[in-house]
Amino acid sequence: MRIGVLGAGQLGRMLALAGYPLAKDFVFYDMSGSPSAGIGETISDPEGQRLDEFLNKVDRVTYEFEHLPVEVAEKIAAKTIVHPCPRALQICQNREAEKTLFGQLGIPTPQWKIADSAETLRAAAEELGCPVVAKTNTEGYDGKGQAVLRSPDDAAAAWQSIGHPRLMVEKFVDFSRELSIIAVRAECGDVAFYPMADNDHHQGILRYSVAPAPKLQAHLRTEAEYYIRGLLTELDYVGVLTLELFETPNGLIANEMAPRVHNSGHWTIEGAMTSQFENHVRAVSGHPLGNVEPRGVSCMINIIGEHGEIERILQLPYAHVHLYNKQERPGRKLGHVNILADNYQELVWRVLNCAQFLPGCPEFNSTLMSKG
Amino acid sequence: MRIGVLGAGQLGRMLALAGYPLAKDFVFYDMSGSPSAGIGETISDPEGQRLDEFLNKVDRVTYEFEHLPVEVAEKIAAKTIVHPCPRALQICQNREAEKTLFGQLGIPTPQWKIADSAETLRAAAEELGCPVVAKTNTEGYDGKGQAVLRSPDDAAAAWQSIGHPRLMVEKFVDFSRELSIIAVRAECGDVAFYPMADNDHHQGILRYSVAPAPKLQAHLRTEAEYYIRGLLTELDYVGVLTLELFETPNGLIANEMAPRVHNSGHWTIEGAMTSQFENHVRAVSGHPLGNVEPRGVSCMINIIGEHGEIERILQLPYAHVHLYNKQERPGRKLGHVNILADNYQELVWRVLNCAQFLPGCPEFNSTLMSKG
Repeated sequence: MRIGVLGAGQLGRMLALAGYPLAKDFVFYDMSGSPSAGIGETISDPEGQRLDEFLNKVDRVTYEFEHLPVEVAEKIAAKTIVHPCPRALQICQNREAEKTLFGQLGIPTPQWKIADSAETLRAAAEELGCPVVAKTNTEGYDGKGQAVLRSPDDAAAAWQSIGHPRLMVEKFVDFSRELSIIAVRAECGDVAFYPMADNDHHQGILRYSVAPAPKLQAHLRTEAEYYIRGLLTELDYVGVLTLELFETPNGLIANEMAPRVHNSGHWTIEGAMTSQFENHVRAVSGHPLGNVEPRGVSCMINIIGEHGEIERILQLPYAHVHLYNKQERPGRKLGHVNILADNYQELVWRVLNCAQFLPGCPEFNSTLMSKG
Repeated sequence: MRIGVLGAGQLGRMLALAGYPLAKDFVFYDMSGSPSAGIGETISDPEGQRLDEFLNKVDRVTYEFEHLPVEVAEKIAAKTIVHPCPRALQICQNREAEKTLFGQLGIPTPQWKIADSAETLRAAAEELGCPVVAKTNTEGYDGKGQAVLRSPDDAAAAWQSIGHPRLMVEKFVDFSRELSIIAVRAECGDVAFYPMADNDHHQGILRYSVAPAPKLQAHLRTEAEYYIRGLLTELDYVGVLTLELFETPNGLIANEMAPRVHNSGHWTIEGAMTSQFENHVRAVSGHPLGNVEPRGVSCMINIIGEHGEIERILQLPYAHVHLYNKQERPGRKLGHVNILADNYQELVWRVLNCAQFLPGCPEFNSTLMSKG
């Protein structure tokens, strides 16, 4: 079976690495002009002229990023099997549609309003009560296209800095930490949930994920599984789905979902019985799902901007290095390191030991220590 | 770094799958005319005309099979870095040279003699005392080119059936089981030893490996490590080396070595902290070695000839399927399944459960039960 992947970045690369052992082949369709998967065949098509050529080569189609034009996904779905469905893509590309669906399914969200001018942004800030976060309603990721309004008076400046005609305005959530849950649904409808991850961001980019999330109350996991199951069922979803959540004193509040394998699930490569990548390939291919149980406790550290002292990290007996073979550039995800341990205390010390070899990690020590 | 691999079968495929996360690229050089790696670039060269083209594409060279002409390896070594060294290849291609080296390094072997005619084969059988095993001195693998002589009278028939001008004749060893040890040596000279595997063969082909080998006396592991370290040092070896051994009441007796990643080490993909494939890539690339500690206990079951009920195996929560994307053919290795467990008793039941979905496995139940 040949699986076509829309997008050709590191997520596609890791899907392929997980899929070859299941006798799958991969063809990547890249519209960015800078594919980096570096494995399988890549059809580079910045002009959008080679889609049929791509479709003729593959048996099934999936994607590794959600910023694909929905028309493209629908055109593909008319010709071949696409997992997950274009509707999931459409919802993830539109915060208003996403929040509306969350609401319909009983998934708590921050209070929100839509703004389509500096004036309505100001009004939204006043009604919701500051601080609020304004985000482009479509597009935007890794913290781009966002602004925090500490007062309604910030509205004009925020509107100008974001420069987008339609904004999602959310009341600021006083959360204790960010969590994510990754689930996978098979063609037959079977669902499996990975243990939740505890995620720390820096400058809008995921810095590290600890999984299973330490000190997690059992009912919060049950809640998260209930929420994501609702989404999977509603969307008749096939493949891996990620739901980002805030932990608050009043329970979980959904932030956003991603219709794909997710950075906060990279720990599963060595830290779970079956990785999120293999499970996505299994689901998309119509196979049964693999076991999602964790193997010990894990921490995924992103390698961002610079590679740091990789040779030193390769010497650590508990570290697994995953490089994306990309050039260094500020803010770019270049790879990740999975740290394994038998318990959280051991994990934290191992992560601190590894982090000294990665630029930009040491500042997280105090956050990290609290997880031990 | 681009690594050139001489050979393009499943071992090369698994080297590449382990090497991409370390930002390596792979080019395969295939002289067989039937490459199956299915990943990276393959230069198919049955006529032997494209070696320079291959060498111009790569930074380092290694191999995935030892039946490569030594002249080719030496020609390559004159132009670029080849790990392991051509001398290792040369010795592994010649049982006489191999047994002689074992003897020089104090590694016990079966008593042996060389035969170059039916008459000398008969004489060797008489002198060693039957049963003896006659094997082609060069070439031959997976039990091919071998005959057992139960009496010196079998010499003429054995000579004819093997049809080779020079035979290694070995006194039959009364062994309780076959073991293997896999070690890896870095460019800097560091050495790491995987736990030994307990290997069962059927019709000359490895059927399954259990690792760490159950009920292994500690001094046998020490012995095996001492032997393989001697080989690594003597050959100034870089990469993964495998030594096959017989366990006897008088200790270990060496069978043969393989200068490469080995079928009895496939369990390391999920069963060890670092797989033999990653460690070979690390060594060949000049990186530090990865941790060779086991993760629980493992059994590798080869998928031979027919795929069996793979969908059923994909449902087993403790099984990891590795397919080579090859067509079914009697006796052909098509893939393997790694079974994981926390203890041997659990492992045996899991293996038995999995084996019912693989043709040709059930007959091993009684051997297998003894390992629980």
